[in-house]
Amino acid sequence: MNLKRSIQQGRVNMISSHAAFPRVVIIGAGFGGLSTAKRLAKAPFNVTIVDRHNYHLFQPLLYQVATAGLSPGDIASPIRGILHQQRNTKVILAKVSGIDTACREVVAEGRRIPYDYLVIATGAEHAYFGHDWSSYAPGLKTIDDATYLRRRILLAFERAETEPDADERRRLLNFVVVGGGPTGVEMAGAIAELAKRALAADFRSIDPRCARIILIEAGPRLLAPFSPALSEAARRSLEQLGVEIRLDARVTDCDCSSVSLGNERLQTRTIVWAAGVKAAPVAGWLGAESDPAGRVKVKADLSVPGHPDIFVIGDAAAATGVDGKPLPGVAPVAKQQGWYVANLLTARAEGRTLPAFRYRDVGSMATIGRKRAVAQIGAFKVTGLVAWLLWSMAHIYFLIGFRNRLAVAMHWCWNYVTFQRGMRLITGISGSRIEDVMPVLSTAPALDRGRILP
Amino acid sequence: MNLKRSIQQGRVNMISSHAAFPRVVIIGAGFGGLSTAKRLAKAPFNVTIVDRHNYHLFQPLLYQVATAGLSPGDIASPIRGILHQQRNTKVILAKVSGIDTACREVVAEGRRIPYDYLVIATGAEHAYFGHDWSSYAPGLKTIDDATYLRRRILLAFERAETEPDADERRRLLNFVVVGGGPTGVEMAGAIAELAKRALAADFRSIDPRCARIILIEAGPRLLAPFSPALSEAARRSLEQLGVEIRLDARVTDCDCSSVSLGNERLQTRTIVWAAGVKAAPVAGWLGAESDPAGRVKVKADLSVPGHPDIFVIGDAAAATGVDGKPLPGVAPVAKQQGWYVANLLTARAEGRTLPAFRYRDVGSMATIGRKRAVAQIGAFKVTGLVAWLLWSMAHIYFLIGFRNRLAVAMHWCWNYVTFQRGMRLITGISGSRIEDVMPVLSTAPALDRGRILP
Repeated sequence: MNLKRSIQQGRVNMISSHAAFPRVVIIGAGFGGLSTAKRLAKAPFNVTIVDRHNYHLFQPLLYQVATAGLSPGDIASPIRGILHQQRNTKVILAKVSGIDTACREVVAEGRRIPYDYLVIATGAEHAYFGHDWSSYAPGLKTIDDATYLRRRILLAFERAETEPDADERRRLLNFVVVGGGPTGVEMAGAIAELAKRALAADFRSIDPRCARIILIEAGPRLLAPFSPALSEAARRSLEQLGVEIRLDARVTDCDCSSVSLGNERLQTRTIVWAAGVKAAPVAGWLGAESDPAGRVKVKADLSVPGHPDIFVIGDAAAATGVDGKPLPGVAPVAKQQGWYVANLLTARAEGRTLPAFRYRDVGSMATIGRKRAVAQIGAFKVTGLVAWLLWSMAHIYFLIGFRNRLAVAMHWCWNYVTFQRGMRLITGISGSRIEDVMPVLSTAPALDRGRILP
Repeated sequence: MNLKRSIQQGRVNMISSHAAFPRVVIIGAGFGGLSTAKRLAKAPFNVTIVDRHNYHLFQPLLYQVATAGLSPGDIASPIRGILHQQRNTKVILAKVSGIDTACREVVAEGRRIPYDYLVIATGAEHAYFGHDWSSYAPGLKTIDDATYLRRRILLAFERAETEPDADERRRLLNFVVVGGGPTGVEMAGAIAELAKRALAADFRSIDPRCARIILIEAGPRLLAPFSPALSEAARRSLEQLGVEIRLDARVTDCDCSSVSLGNERLQTRTIVWAAGVKAAPVAGWLGAESDPAGRVKVKADLSVPGHPDIFVIGDAAAATGVDGKPLPGVAPVAKQQGWYVANLLTARAEGRTLPAFRYRDVGSMATIGRKRAVAQIGAFKVTGLVAWLLWSMAHIYFLIGFRNRLAVAMHWCWNYVTFQRGMRLITGISGSRIEDVMPVLSTAPALDRGRILP
């Protein structure tokens, strides 16, 4: 009781009274790291959370930033703001480069942060199956990725508007999304709505409604984790929006003006990569065993074999469910694992033990566009408007911070009523650097490209 | 009547029927350029508006983006969206590099855009009085400037939190704003509120309330264009917020860790430049006469001497009022000049003439912080809460686009009630590039900077 009271007291007391508590260091303030930290708010620990960004990002809505429906500020919330009332917790902005398991220290930008318990929740990044396609086919994992993609997509239309060469104009209006999982499906649907609705009346030389959006999936159906009936519903919805879907199609090459599928070449200036992820390089830091996607193989209590005080959760971990199948890389898994580890640490501090981690499946959802979504919650499956409303409510509910929820709800109502996208800003370029974002093809020289007849 | 009807018809008809109309090319979609374009909506002209950005920026609120109160999307609106119903108007995203007055063509990224009438509304950029201080003392003119400054300001606090060296920590918590005009006053007030309110509880090792905010003005009082009584009120309000004000102080040097005022050196890692502007290089394009700030000297009808079909408006023009004094570089001047040029062109097309341009002074306002502002409308002067409410209402009213107004009003209410700033995102850096934004001083080496004791 005395402990609890002293935790709730001011800064000076805290520092002295917490100094004696075991140090929990959490790497990463995504869904997993943040849920660990929040669950430890009143526990007798000295918590430090380290992230390379100063905000928690609500990644499921990142595609909306990339397609000009929301602002970065709507889906990101400062970590310090989220945790500022939690007096036992310290936030450090730094990029972790390694872990010294012998000294029990985290190495971050030349600094060393000592731990008694370590929770690693570093997530995943894009993977190109060993290819070097990242500059041609950007992915969507961070806010900077999203504003970069938004820039690329909007600039393609701007370029097309003034492009005298018909072939290049066609290339500029072709958009290829690689990967038919939830991110790919959402991106393809959102680009289609952007082109066919929001931008439809904005141009004079081109008709954005003629844009082609092509979704490529290597497997036999979209949204593989969902039931076949929902995959089929998603395919139909996307086709109604005008998206062309290529199943069983494997990308063999990407360059600045095309995507190759074996012998076939799709001409395009905009490729979105949503096909593969690999875990952050945690296994290497720990010398631990990992699966082919780089995820650390963890024990049933989410600790790393041989390191009972180090836990890996979320997308960085290869955990299995009670059925022996690997758990998917989704937010609910990361959150539940975060809570579990926090509970486990608290239990250990009190001399108790906990049973192994067990994932409670809360269902999956993917949205395709306005009034179109699919949702699967246990045996319950739903599509169309009902699924879309469910999806909207769930995403607004889970957004961190009351203000963000309100802002997002308002933007969505506005976009729904007007078909507009307010966030169509091409930022991060001064005029002279447009060429850097989307280089002019050598076949269409930058100079003397003819007169524009207004 | 037939003309008007054909203008309101669809794309195909428009292109054929507008082809015969005189071509008006407008460079710049700020307050001046946009008001020209909008006023020409129903006029018998073929209008093209060229801008290096795809959005119109509501510059008076830019300081709120720099200090994490608003998102870029709240104060910027896509030009195409604003003008999409205006069928006689075409928007081109390009950076203009020159004007060929002999051929009557605008040169932009290797393209040539022919005009019959040209309206130049290219605004102003920062000026450092001939010094090369832009990398040490960034200014505030574009969205990228604002997000860059936001990054700098927020990173200074983050750095201070983990900095072991006391001197460097002090430098990191000193913020110097150069220039006591409206932008400087607003920035200084907003940084003070950020440090003393929004961030107050967020850190564990530093107390953001100890941050020093120093406002430097070369003249004898703040807000020179306002009455001395309002200047004094602004000074008092800023001092109540904890801002230190240095009048009659001239900056003689800037570097990455200090600002020099003659022999005195203020140690700081964050300098905001709000001291001087110069016009875009329009005079050089035209071979026209300009004033010392580079603004083109225009005739009473805002045309360029020797070029009766070329007009310069807004911050790029040196126009004088009926009293012979130069007009200030503020939005209402640019807007009224835009309307005037549009009316003049329409009058000319109808064989009428117009009297010379005459600026109607609508008053000036500057905000200092929550419940603190000054306003001067003719002989009417007001300070404090009333001025602040007036300022808030005027700025929300003039914001382009209904959705933006609503979003900004909501953010302000939220910030007002909670003292929070939701947009505290440090974006545009991947972890490894933090050093690029704010290089570590050589006196405080990046490696082995000691352990952090959580």
